[in-house]
Amino acid sequence: MKIDVLTLFPDVINEVLHESIVGKALEKQLFDLNVINFRDYSDDKHHHVDDTPYGGGAGMLLQPQPIFRALDDVNTQSTAAQKRVILLDPAGVPFTQKIAENLAHEEELVFICGHYEGYDERIRTLVTDEFSLGDFVLTGGELGALTMIDATVRLLPGVLGNQASNKDESFSTGLLEYPQYTRPPEYRGLKVPDVLMSGNHQEIDKWRAKEALRRTYERRPDLLSTYDLSSQQKKWLREFERADLGK
Amino acid sequence: MKIDVLTLFPDVINEVLHESIVGKALEKQLFDLNVINFRDYSDDKHHHVDDTPYGGGAGMLLQPQPIFRALDDVNTQSTAAQKRVILLDPAGVPFTQKIAENLAHEEELVFICGHYEGYDERIRTLVTDEFSLGDFVLTGGELGALTMIDATVRLLPGVLGNQASNKDESFSTGLLEYPQYTRPPEYRGLKVPDVLMSGNHQEIDKWRAKEALRRTYERRPDLLSTYDLSSQQKKWLREFERADLGK
Repeated sequence: MKIDVLTLFPDVINEVLHESIVGKALEKQLFDLNVINFRDYSDDKHHHVDDTPYGGGAGMLLQPQPIFRALDDVNTQSTAAQKRVILLDPAGVPFTQKIAENLAHEEELVFICGHYEGYDERIRTLVTDEFSLGDFVLTGGELGALTMIDATVRLLPGVLGNQASNKDESFSTGLLEYPQYTRPPEYRGLKVPDVLMSGNHQEIDKWRAKEALRRTYERRPDLLSTYDLSSQQKKWLREFERADLGK
Repeated sequence: MKIDVLTLFPDVINEVLHESIVGKALEKQLFDLNVINFRDYSDDKHHHVDDTPYGGGAGMLLQPQPIFRALDDVNTQSTAAQKRVILLDPAGVPFTQKIAENLAHEEELVFICGHYEGYDERIRTLVTDEFSLGDFVLTGGELGALTMIDATVRLLPGVLGNQASNKDESFSTGLLEYPQYTRPPEYRGLKVPDVLMSGNHQEIDKWRAKEALRRTYERRPDLLSTYDLSSQQKKWLREFERADLGK
């Protein structure tokens, strides 16, 4: 996979993507990264990339020209049969794990990071997708692009040390993850549940399945509305509901 | 406002928060930043901070001890009457603009960034809030913390150059933002709508109000279910619906 990022803050993109698990994946060439400062494509002699909005109003907007030209260059250098060109915008489709799983199969992803007040509407004509991280406003698109890249790259083959790491986590199973514990067995009076140290793997699996369901029931009951419950899970749910009524 | 970040990747936090609008706010001391590498608080002679899960399973979990001790230090140095201690976790409350507005009034915010497979459940006993960026999984909590900090800091007085910049943007008004345009008037055959260059501010305001409503209707009709529509807006909505039926 090749990832291109059009940004005014290449140091931010490079610093974050060269660290940690994603940084190791980059080092191992499990994906290629091409960070482009679109200010370099400005026709303006002072390298300005923004201007005031037509019709008045506060703030500065990104102009079309530097981004159109930077994308021309990306297209010229691209060998991918097709690619996704992604704009980060609060009005975009809310990003989810399903979208990350979908993007992880692409040959090339181009991220356009806005900044300042917003961007000239014509920039939207360049893109195949508009995504939003959620219902909140950020100072720019960089954190959105980095988040999407992180969520997508970790799904590429070979990126997570242990392939099993993906299997049980939140959202992949449709439920939130069960509580987890590591050493020491007791810390400041707080103990690890006995069952986890019992060595009885059938009991451990049962406890984890039940606690994953409990956590989802307590925190994100909305996830259960589309979840296909087993008869055991239905029994547990009735147990949780009865306990709630008793409170 | 004081912001403490407990992380294994202090360079990532520092690089991102020293750039752009948030970086300028930091320079102007509109908030204070305290980045703590909790690896420094490990009792382990190799400075390990993670271990395998009790009961078996893939991946490594953060141990309680380094994070408990790092937070002890934050508490000792704190002068705030109360503070929010925030854990980034997929099982947390989904982060929204309302939460950012709420956090912007706090005296001190502490962010705990997990990493590896997850963390020991006992770490949750330290926190006042658990937040999630959305329904997706990341390699660590850093991008979540950075996103929440960006969304919150930009709301602090004096951070955005022009206070009006906040007023019309997506989610603050309850609608998505209207399309915006800047120079040039025509680029690669794409033109700025005439009304925006008319100088008629009444017409411009009307166009913007209608287009903000149209965009919300087309992309995020869910936002309209809790929105208090004016009679003009109701008329426009009927117009959009009729046009859809005619398609």
